[in-house]
Amino acid sequence: MHILITGAAGMIGRKLTERLALDSAIGGTPIDKLTLIDIVAPARAEGLSGHVTSRTVDLAEPGTAAKAVAERPEIIFHLAGVVSGEAEIDFDKGYRVNLESMQQLLAAIRAVDDGYKPKLIFASSMAVFGAPFPPAIYDEFHLTPLTSYGTQKAICELLLADHTRRGICEGVGIRLPSIAVRPGKPNKAASGFFSSIIREPLAGREVTLPVADTVLHTHASPRSAVNFLIHAAELPRDKLGPRINLNMPGVTCTVAEQIEALRQIAGDRVVARIRREPDVLITRIVDGWPHRFDPRRALALGFKAEGSFDEIIRVHIEDDLGGKIAN
Amino acid sequence: MHILITGAAGMIGRKLTERLALDSAIGGTPIDKLTLIDIVAPARAEGLSGHVTSRTVDLAEPGTAAKAVAERPEIIFHLAGVVSGEAEIDFDKGYRVNLESMQQLLAAIRAVDDGYKPKLIFASSMAVFGAPFPPAIYDEFHLTPLTSYGTQKAICELLLADHTRRGICEGVGIRLPSIAVRPGKPNKAASGFFSSIIREPLAGREVTLPVADTVLHTHASPRSAVNFLIHAAELPRDKLGPRINLNMPGVTCTVAEQIEALRQIAGDRVVARIRREPDVLITRIVDGWPHRFDPRRALALGFKAEGSFDEIIRVHIEDDLGGKIAN
Repeated sequence: MHILITGAAGMIGRKLTERLALDSAIGGTPIDKLTLIDIVAPARAEGLSGHVTSRTVDLAEPGTAAKAVAERPEIIFHLAGVVSGEAEIDFDKGYRVNLESMQQLLAAIRAVDDGYKPKLIFASSMAVFGAPFPPAIYDEFHLTPLTSYGTQKAICELLLADHTRRGICEGVGIRLPSIAVRPGKPNKAASGFFSSIIREPLAGREVTLPVADTVLHTHASPRSAVNFLIHAAELPRDKLGPRINLNMPGVTCTVAEQIEALRQIAGDRVVARIRREPDVLITRIVDGWPHRFDPRRALALGFKAEGSFDEIIRVHIEDDLGGKIAN
Repeated sequence: MHILITGAAGMIGRKLTERLALDSAIGGTPIDKLTLIDIVAPARAEGLSGHVTSRTVDLAEPGTAAKAVAERPEIIFHLAGVVSGEAEIDFDKGYRVNLESMQQLLAAIRAVDDGYKPKLIFASSMAVFGAPFPPAIYDEFHLTPLTSYGTQKAICELLLADHTRRGICEGVGIRLPSIAVRPGKPNKAASGFFSSIIREPLAGREVTLPVADTVLHTHASPRSAVNFLIHAAELPRDKLGPRINLNMPGVTCTVAEQIEALRQIAGDRVVARIRREPDVLITRIVDGWPHRFDPRRALALGFKAEGSFDEIIRVHIEDDLGGKIAN
């Protein structure tokens, strides 16, 4: 089995690579080749017995996608993309990286034209939805994104579905909820605090909470995101039907519940490192985001997230902190 | 007021041109210039006192859209496109004409960059929806097209909404139901019979009905389609909000009700020209189409279709047969 990962240097890309290296197989088939591509140099996968190739390339550049599919990877995880904030600030870059890369990839697969029909697992986002929302976003709710990022993801989903319907590839689009707890440094994303209010106190650092603790949001861990991607690749085609883009499950809770989970796990001293400092702009942005989902199809298809925010914190401690926390 | 119509040589384009020529104004403002473009030569608008320019150009060709917006039309009706069947048979042509033309047009508007912000009225289609359907398609029902044509229209809607949100244009996408009674010769579209079972008998010719007369479908006349386009252009921006793509109203009835309306208007002898000749393929295609809509937003915004299929037939007789029918 040959697997291609685009955007392999990103946080989810790195974790997916590590997991595939650990498993050495997918759907019961040994992985004998792993190709990692990204616009920045992807980290080398340690531990994978098979052959690993890393390439630093721009997928939106004509010819790059053709090279990437020339060796006929049976499974492609398409994770490459710029984040929401960047796509909003730089209109051209967002459409180029988030949309044209997908168009190039699909065109390259179609151009092979010898019966090649890879599985193409696409990391989409709940940003395809835009307010106003029903109490819980159901599977048939329409896509009216309120960002260019969400627009680009929604268009990629439509293209993926049409190419799948025509037998060019076997696509699955998975709409990820917010990923928490993100490892690494705080970033400027408006959603960053959902992770940093857990990560920073656990690492012994102070952090500010820019919204009211009544804010309700849906989260899944990076480990769950990787599980979703792998489960999507393993899903039998006939279970899916023509509606290939799916809302993923997650843990819905308030910020207060996130903080209480942290207290249960790490104690009052850790929680005391969270300083409340309301930010009007971030509050307004977050108010426009979906709060709750009712992802029946994904659950019926066997996609699983954590059962509680406690569990999400424990996954972070296990996967990113080597099981240790600073008290 | 300068108005640009793309796809001006098509059936709706011609009728819109005639209507604008007749009205000589839109939203109370006199029309002093009308530019018609199409890949085939658009018919010259008779009766328009202002200056009319016709150009035979390919909008998907780089540079064409820039020329089309160089004279800053305040309203653009974007009707250009290939039909469903053609987009399904010719993958590349469908994406080129139906998607790249819109991308070129939006890019050309954005490139002006001097505060130019035209109204852009886009003729979308109910083909953005795909089975299975709820009993009536509501405004928040998701888009899961089952044709490349529907996919291309859905992508254009998303692009239009994002460009509108960013202040590049003032877009409105109107999802047209089936247009009946289409004038002219029978075509090979699977939906053709909805029109031809009325048009052909009225013209003294025999016609075959390929489906059961229990088939339920939603129709609007070409005159209503033109009304929708003009109403969309006249709609005050603040009434619309960010969800700019709208399901249009129509008349929902069975084929039996269509035929009964024809009998009431033209008599048994005309109806006797319809020969029932079931076609398995057409029946299967039509079964996959939406039957009924619940277009609350469009109705609340003042979009109006006919009240009955009788009225649709009378519009055809008035607009296309000069008020006369062959008994």
